[in-house]
Amino acid sequence: MTAPLKSVEGTGDLATAMAAIGRGARAAARTLALAAPAQKDRALGLMAAAVRAQKSQILAANAEDLGEARGGGLTGAFIDRLALDEARVEAMAAGIEAVRALQDPVGRITESWTRPNGMTIERVRVPLGVIGIIYESRPNVTADAGALCLKSGNAAILRGGSDSLRSSRAILAALTQGLREAGLPEATIQLVPTRDRAAVGLMLGGLDGAIDVIVPRGGTSLVARVQAEARVPVFAHLEGVCHVYVDKAASLDMAKKIVLNAKMRRTGVCGAAETLLVDRAAAATHLKPLLEMLIDAGCEIRGDKAALAVDSRVKPASEDDWSTEYLDAVIAAGVVDGVDAAIAHIERYGSHHTDAIVTDDAAAAEKFLREVDSAIVLHNASTQFADGGEFGFGAEIGIATGRLHARGPVGVDQLTTFKYRIRGNGQIRP
Amino acid sequence: MTAPLKSVEGTGDLATAMAAIGRGARAAARTLALAAPAQKDRALGLMAAAVRAQKSQILAANAEDLGEARGGGLTGAFIDRLALDEARVEAMAAGIEAVRALQDPVGRITESWTRPNGMTIERVRVPLGVIGIIYESRPNVTADAGALCLKSGNAAILRGGSDSLRSSRAILAALTQGLREAGLPEATIQLVPTRDRAAVGLMLGGLDGAIDVIVPRGGTSLVARVQAEARVPVFAHLEGVCHVYVDKAASLDMAKKIVLNAKMRRTGVCGAAETLLVDRAAAATHLKPLLEMLIDAGCEIRGDKAALAVDSRVKPASEDDWSTEYLDAVIAAGVVDGVDAAIAHIERYGSHHTDAIVTDDAAAAEKFLREVDSAIVLHNASTQFADGGEFGFGAEIGIATGRLHARGPVGVDQLTTFKYRIRGNGQIRP
Repeated sequence: MTAPLKSVEGTGDLATAMAAIGRGARAAARTLALAAPAQKDRALGLMAAAVRAQKSQILAANAEDLGEARGGGLTGAFIDRLALDEARVEAMAAGIEAVRALQDPVGRITESWTRPNGMTIERVRVPLGVIGIIYESRPNVTADAGALCLKSGNAAILRGGSDSLRSSRAILAALTQGLREAGLPEATIQLVPTRDRAAVGLMLGGLDGAIDVIVPRGGTSLVARVQAEARVPVFAHLEGVCHVYVDKAASLDMAKKIVLNAKMRRTGVCGAAETLLVDRAAAATHLKPLLEMLIDAGCEIRGDKAALAVDSRVKPASEDDWSTEYLDAVIAAGVVDGVDAAIAHIERYGSHHTDAIVTDDAAAAEKFLREVDSAIVLHNASTQFADGGEFGFGAEIGIATGRLHARGPVGVDQLTTFKYRIRGNGQIRP
Repeated sequence: MTAPLKSVEGTGDLATAMAAIGRGARAAARTLALAAPAQKDRALGLMAAAVRAQKSQILAANAEDLGEARGGGLTGAFIDRLALDEARVEAMAAGIEAVRALQDPVGRITESWTRPNGMTIERVRVPLGVIGIIYESRPNVTADAGALCLKSGNAAILRGGSDSLRSSRAILAALTQGLREAGLPEATIQLVPTRDRAAVGLMLGGLDGAIDVIVPRGGTSLVARVQAEARVPVFAHLEGVCHVYVDKAASLDMAKKIVLNAKMRRTGVCGAAETLLVDRAAAATHLKPLLEMLIDAGCEIRGDKAALAVDSRVKPASEDDWSTEYLDAVIAAGVVDGVDAAIAHIERYGSHHTDAIVTDDAAAAEKFLREVDSAIVLHNASTQFADGGEFGFGAEIGIATGRLHARGPVGVDQLTTFKYRIRGNGQIRP
């Protein structure tokens, strides 16, 4: 049995409790920013060990959350996100160890130069400070996000889903033990100890300057609320309306392989393709095989006139379909007049996340890579590579489609900022 | 005579007019992002030429602004900021040419690597998009900011001070002529054509997603309002409470040279020192010469007990003095117990802008450079080097003390973001 669900609810002073969390995080961040890499890595190793050692407590807490969720009539997909088992707990511990193995970004000199007056200037990575993470039902985010923040020298304030609060608290207990054993502040990773939704509003306000950036992890409605209300910077993507454009100079075999993977490898990830655009000049040869391949794979097609003409199983696309993120085995499909029209379509309907061209024409590829204004643009590769691990960043805390600071996968490097260190020998400004 | 002051005031629909400006900027930004460097440089050259050719119109418009300001009883410093003369107009044209001579940041590949599956990933600089600049009485910001935005491939929406609106319009006319002659959209640089202060509020709201970042250029009250109300990212510093810490291992000669320069070279710049901290272990030898040097140079000292004991002309410092940005010939001065206490003082009272240590002790210097959490930290050099030009960035649009994206001097590189370009040969994700 886990401890009874303590909460600041009912104390009448959520704001006071949240402000204390903010101050604790800020103080911890100051210590963490100066902590040696070896100490952070030691903590991460101990955290992974504690997650394994406390597996039964974590699973017991999760069973309580699951019981309450089932009692509340929650659905299968929700229950699946919430549920932990031995394999998922082990995956959490292994995930912490994977973060531990990453290169420490803090203190890395990314640029240095010497001025004509002899001063040297270095640009060096330093932690962002305090990261607020607002997530939904998946309790493993507690461990993933906590580990990434620690590795990058940041303090974390976690606000998990109400339904997974017991699970998250049990996971946090293991993380806290690792921090304590490594001599790092327990406030390095804090969990908001309440189901009161007003806590989210307070975090979005920045807790009086205590939070430097907010990362929402969850569905579109959560991200939309965070983007609309946050008074601090947000690393997020609202939607991934990702496109694959099959150019007239595309090999049909390669196009089939990439389209199938981009749409169907996993339909629920943000890098999954949601729209297929085929060059009108290749429609006669490419459109039918591509659509039939998708239909045979169990994908519903919502098509334009050209696509409807190919197969009676294609349904008509509405205007909304072109900007819909299905996150399911559904795709909008149509023809466009070449690469320029594809770029214009993506500019109009896309979400600046990830878009791909399939072509053997180098000029068309370069035009697409240059002109499509998305965080990630690909030539002859699947949109499902939109992932920090696939970039070689190790774990990621999310994908950002905002234009500032972090764009694309947000890994430990993107959780840092920088400062300038200048060394002189008495230089003064004339 | 300039044209009569047209305005959207009285049309009853400021929001509609501002939205149109936003849409125009967004469309221009799309063109600019893809414009060749040579075309942007051609426009900058033509803009500088037009500023020189239209000198008399610019000065005539400025004379009208000055007449109205004087009639309204405005003060000497205000009038000085507002006033143009032949030399200032020439400086504006030369400033545009200096921006033209900078390296174009757009398209520069800052990182590239190959994944084990053979895909290559490049990180390439692209423009931010649309920059909103909100400034006060200096009309030359119209040219400076417009040129920096154009060079970095961004569209600019300028909202200058009401008192300099005629001057800014005359300058804009010259810039617009250069854009037109170079075949770039006139909406590349737009000036909000109204004195209605509600326009600022609309810009801070982002004009329905049309503005990517806001840069305020002006006094603390303007910056504070922008930081408090902006719904889009802001590049700014509210205050530069910059410190010089003179360590026990400092050469007195070097300390005198650096302190005098840091405080008195120009007292009104954000990198000017506002607090002098002297190591207690060096107070007996260093404090009196440093304070007397400053007093002799015309600087008022607000000191702690140790400083008060040195010279009867030292005034007592209040608690507020330690966090005050004087921007004048005034400095707070006191002793601290070594480098750790100096760092703690700066953390408590500073503004994370620019701070310097003077010492011959390498270990103390490295500790200071590592632990002081400011955008710029210096060893044995003056805080007045906090400037894009002095960093080698060329012109700057300001200094940022926020932690995200741009920190320190904001030059053309900092006005860009990036995207990832991936090239494959049929890779799909397993």
